[in-house]
Amino acid sequence: MESKTIGVVGLGLMGASLCKALGAQGHRILGRDTDEHVQKYALLTETIQGELTEDNIPECDYLFLATYPGAAVETLKQLAPKIRKDAVVSDLCGVKQAVCEPCFALAEEYGFTFIGGHPMAGKQFSGIKYADGNLFQNATMILVPRKREDLFLVSRLSELLRETGFKSVTVTTAEKHDEMIAFTSQLAHVVSNAYIKSPTAAEHLSFSAGSYRDLTRVAKLNETMWTELFLDNAEHLGFELDCLIKSLQEYRDAIAAGDAETLKKLLKEGRERKEAIDTEWQDKK
Amino acid sequence: MESKTIGVVGLGLMGASLCKALGAQGHRILGRDTDEHVQKYALLTETIQGELTEDNIPECDYLFLATYPGAAVETLKQLAPKIRKDAVVSDLCGVKQAVCEPCFALAEEYGFTFIGGHPMAGKQFSGIKYADGNLFQNATMILVPRKREDLFLVSRLSELLRETGFKSVTVTTAEKHDEMIAFTSQLAHVVSNAYIKSPTAAEHLSFSAGSYRDLTRVAKLNETMWTELFLDNAEHLGFELDCLIKSLQEYRDAIAAGDAETLKKLLKEGRERKEAIDTEWQDKK
Repeated sequence: MESKTIGVVGLGLMGASLCKALGAQGHRILGRDTDEHVQKYALLTETIQGELTEDNIPECDYLFLATYPGAAVETLKQLAPKIRKDAVVSDLCGVKQAVCEPCFALAEEYGFTFIGGHPMAGKQFSGIKYADGNLFQNATMILVPRKREDLFLVSRLSELLRETGFKSVTVTTAEKHDEMIAFTSQLAHVVSNAYIKSPTAAEHLSFSAGSYRDLTRVAKLNETMWTELFLDNAEHLGFELDCLIKSLQEYRDAIAAGDAETLKKLLKEGRERKEAIDTEWQDKK
Repeated sequence: MESKTIGVVGLGLMGASLCKALGAQGHRILGRDTDEHVQKYALLTETIQGELTEDNIPECDYLFLATYPGAAVETLKQLAPKIRKDAVVSDLCGVKQAVCEPCFALAEEYGFTFIGGHPMAGKQFSGIKYADGNLFQNATMILVPRKREDLFLVSRLSELLRETGFKSVTVTTAEKHDEMIAFTSQLAHVVSNAYIKSPTAAEHLSFSAGSYRDLTRVAKLNETMWTELFLDNAEHLGFELDCLIKSLQEYRDAIAAGDAETLKKLLKEGRERKEAIDTEWQDKK
């Protein structure tokens, strides 16, 4: 692909990784971060080729918002008047309804294109220090275009992103994204964070098993970011938490009652469910 | 170590892996399984050198019970009169109070030594087909001797087990083992098995994240075995489930109330807890 000028707002783990991945493909990367030290570090390490300013916004063919959801919307409000009408703007936020609705409205008002995005990639660390140009290798990218978006523009963005190593791009709605992500990612983070709070956790060292390590891997999270993501998706995450609490209570009751038949039935249902989903997953690969 | 004769009852994943690991060290392995096909397969694949029978029980220097807990106790009742007084008997069961109490009594009655055991190793598959002589490499072995057990006998068993690759042996009480294992392993299996039951699980394919995969890895469990293990440890597992349900409900309530301050506090507590435990773990390594 010919070299494009790409603006990235927010140089944390995701934003800076995107800068590295796209920079490695020969594009010109302009970036900015509210933290001055991060901004300088990005320039020194050549993660970005220049600072993204109000003056050079019109040079951008693509613009990515890689901040928390609320800040992404605020930034776009501020930059919208300078964005070229043929530019494609996207974001990397973990919720889509809270971001896409106001951003679609701004795109409509100012004439550029906004397509929501969420890379299914990450690390249990945050910040530019951990940025990695290979972070998106073999991951899936979720894209959320407006209902009647020009498919040519979606495919233009999709092709640019594939240069960074994504193995597939899934196009969906903001509602569907938020419903699914509440289950696959947000619920996992809440459970992991709650799991470690058992009073037994402090004494278990020699008894640590692989299952414990897996269950608590994502407990070490950035609470400021996740608080915003969870509250932006309160309805779906609340639904998932209710399902899980109700289900755990069923096992709890069967154990308290010494009811082997019910407990075995509950465990069998879970095993069969997991097997069916793994099989379907294997078939779709 | 000089070659010993070792009897193994139960040739599933754990028992057959132990046969392979000890056989590779030059010991003579006698095994038996209630499933005739498993028994034949073990002989054909040279996982065992011969069948363990009532006649050759007195030849055994060590005897391992690698069945479900209830069957381990029943087997020992049946074999006890034939076991040599200088033999050391152990087991590989996932709960220790339910196994050790009756087995200590049998050892006392018949004059041999019983030391409970639980290898902190496993796979999400079961059966002799998946047996692996390297399963115990770098794992921890938990041993549960009687309060006033001869330390020479504990160390004799410990040395034999280290030949299979265990990197450490932890000596503890049955009570402490069951309390810890409820948290590190049993709770993880219940949560994983419950997690997959969300109605969203069937539709999430493109949205699958690493956190989802980790949380549901052990959902595919052997419900017959785990029902027995859970009910044998009902009190401790019940306690852990109550803690987790209560904790999840706190996040749930903060999310429903849109209470960012409380939600952030809950998440911060979990992160700090995980960091403190990981640091302690690192220090002890």
